[in-house]
Amino acid sequence: MTQFMVGSEVKTKGKLAKFASYLMNVKTTEEKNDALAKIAEQLLIEKDAILEANKKDLVSGKENGLTDAVLDRIMLNEQRIQAMCEAIFQLISLPDPIGEVLESFTKENGLKIEKRRVPLGVVCMIYEARPNVTVDAATLCLKTGNAVMLRGSSSAKHSNIALVSCIHRALEKSALPIDAVQLIEDTRHETASELFHLKEYIDVLIPRGGKKLIDLVVKEASVPVLETGAGNCHIYVDQSADYEIAEKVIINAKTQRPSVCNAAESLLIHKDWFKLHGKKLLTNLENAGVEIIGDEKVCDVLPHATLASDEDYATEYLSLTISVKIVNNVDEAIDHINYYGTKHSEAIITNDEKSAEIFLNRVDATSVYVNASTRFTDGFEFGYGAEIGISTQKLHARGPMGLPALTSTKYYIRGNGQIRG
Amino acid sequence: MTQFMVGSEVKTKGKLAKFASYLMNVKTTEEKNDALAKIAEQLLIEKDAILEANKKDLVSGKENGLTDAVLDRIMLNEQRIQAMCEAIFQLISLPDPIGEVLESFTKENGLKIEKRRVPLGVVCMIYEARPNVTVDAATLCLKTGNAVMLRGSSSAKHSNIALVSCIHRALEKSALPIDAVQLIEDTRHETASELFHLKEYIDVLIPRGGKKLIDLVVKEASVPVLETGAGNCHIYVDQSADYEIAEKVIINAKTQRPSVCNAAESLLIHKDWFKLHGKKLLTNLENAGVEIIGDEKVCDVLPHATLASDEDYATEYLSLTISVKIVNNVDEAIDHINYYGTKHSEAIITNDEKSAEIFLNRVDATSVYVNASTRFTDGFEFGYGAEIGISTQKLHARGPMGLPALTSTKYYIRGNGQIRG
Repeated sequence: MTQFMVGSEVKTKGKLAKFASYLMNVKTTEEKNDALAKIAEQLLIEKDAILEANKKDLVSGKENGLTDAVLDRIMLNEQRIQAMCEAIFQLISLPDPIGEVLESFTKENGLKIEKRRVPLGVVCMIYEARPNVTVDAATLCLKTGNAVMLRGSSSAKHSNIALVSCIHRALEKSALPIDAVQLIEDTRHETASELFHLKEYIDVLIPRGGKKLIDLVVKEASVPVLETGAGNCHIYVDQSADYEIAEKVIINAKTQRPSVCNAAESLLIHKDWFKLHGKKLLTNLENAGVEIIGDEKVCDVLPHATLASDEDYATEYLSLTISVKIVNNVDEAIDHINYYGTKHSEAIITNDEKSAEIFLNRVDATSVYVNASTRFTDGFEFGYGAEIGISTQKLHARGPMGLPALTSTKYYIRGNGQIRG
Repeated sequence: MTQFMVGSEVKTKGKLAKFASYLMNVKTTEEKNDALAKIAEQLLIEKDAILEANKKDLVSGKENGLTDAVLDRIMLNEQRIQAMCEAIFQLISLPDPIGEVLESFTKENGLKIEKRRVPLGVVCMIYEARPNVTVDAATLCLKTGNAVMLRGSSSAKHSNIALVSCIHRALEKSALPIDAVQLIEDTRHETASELFHLKEYIDVLIPRGGKKLIDLVVKEASVPVLETGAGNCHIYVDQSADYEIAEKVIINAKTQRPSVCNAAESLLIHKDWFKLHGKKLLTNLENAGVEIIGDEKVCDVLPHATLASDEDYATEYLSLTISVKIVNNVDEAIDHINYYGTKHSEAIITNDEKSAEIFLNRVDATSVYVNASTRFTDGFEFGYGAEIGISTQKLHARGPMGLPALTSTKYYIRGNGQIRG
């Protein structure tokens, strides 16, 4: 590791990444895929050294009192390295978005204008414990012709250094510049702050991690941010909903993997449907291990339920808890969702075409479902073959982000002396 | 004018705009176009009141010592109101991007997924003196199904209040909610700062004005920003350049309208071409009224030229001044442009296909030209029929922005009980 003065590491590596990005943007798909394959090979070659570095992180993590959950996120083993390699081969098989012609037209004066997909330039990923993000972020950026600056957490420092050294040795054997992958090794807060404002060299910041990290980056950064966010996802059961579909979708959306952003957190039920099926549905949810926090009507029929507060409706539990509210109609459900939701994934269970259309059009979210589980909001499930994250912002990319989210566009204009009159 | 407590105007109007945005996003193209036509009509009906309000701004502007250039930007007259109306009818004739299906596929499990264009929601425009931006921004946002918050400058306060009142009276007669257009009347700094952070209600901030305003918004805002920027545009004259094309393109790009962002500010000339044609070209530029600031080689052949500093190469003059540097080859030109440029519009004059391709691919800018004037970077010139501004950032939109830049996307997903395994 080269030693840098405070602050100078970020600027120096930013500059190197910027220079590398100008070389990267003309690399062919073959050159990029070849480098990716070499990275996968090198990971297997250096497996033992990587696991040894990872052990150092685990040991100091235990000394520093990290929880078992965090230690598990830091932990690498042969299987997890194998999984990284498989993800790389999957990435190689995906089409290269760079160079795609998105628009093409000739003006009356003879100017030929093409709008083409180009790399973003330098992407900076700021992320938390998991060292697999290091390899994932680097390879996604290389595939899309970008240079990348990686700023992981101190808890995975040794693992990240070993992984990036390994990537560098692979790039040395490839046609890509090794400077295209930069790891910021100094993990003090100051380096993150410096990255937030390095507009000179960084084209986009992508935070990957918990809400606290993302909120900090969004609040502080002057470099544009690709925001991935929290999911307070709702399922609304309409008057005409099919019972079987409602029950299986709700149980799936709540219990299949409660800790992820596309899991359901809140249930809205039409008052008439609730009278007919409410008790049965909620009892079955309880039997599936779900704790129910509901409004007065819910508490009336369900002795175990806790009374919900306004705050409950705004909470992303990320656990086997769900808030339940009885509503008068689809409009009330939509207003509730647009007020309390985080604009991630929202579903209606209905047999009424009109309710479905109103819900699809008026709910403000990345992904709106009719009669299906919110758990499908995912780059792989949508068939994009890769996922940078799920954008909950409205600019650039919204919903699951595949490779094109890591690209920009450029106008190529060819003339023979045209001037503006 | 309703009176608000400090701060409360922004929040209250933000909330009203957000509610209105949920009504706007289901309005039909016909309803939106009808409302636009009614705004144009109402502007003509209320012409006298608008001009009277504008006179108040001009009088207090003179009292406050505003320059003639700024007063001219504030000034409205019958012709300028007529021009606003014409722009509205042009906007009505453009296709409505909302509802366009961008992707559509059915997964193996039967889920039907559509990616559709939807409005952004609430767009906040922060702008300077010119009151025509008020009408322009409001109508562009309404056409794209958005609600809009307008924050103009104190120097055009009376004009902006008159224009927005007029728009409200037109909307009252239309199917659109009048709350879709909100003017922040309190023009103290505090209201701008509050808007920068009103993530709860605002989906995107668009600053329109000088570099100082844009830099402030980018630096301070936590709401995502659509950045339009400065143009330090270059023209590189390659070894093989045709003399006639070089001269006419350079004179056009520098002198046709020197105060705009797509005007040329810097000239790079291949050393061999310079030996043959340099003196003639630069003399003709001087004869066209251009002041030349050049490197030593330029000063050697041109007695009137001033020696250029590093700072000159980074300067957007916005006047009849140009910096000139002699370079060894196309690579040196590209490196110079990528270092000093603002990534706006860059041109090469060449007869060499290879130089043209290298330049097109490696120069990092929104629009790269071969043998044509940089002045063409413009939404109308590109045929988009409207222009929100020219984005110099890489996310969301890059280069001239037409109506689609004011939209986002949403996934519509229809199933019959699909759950994730």
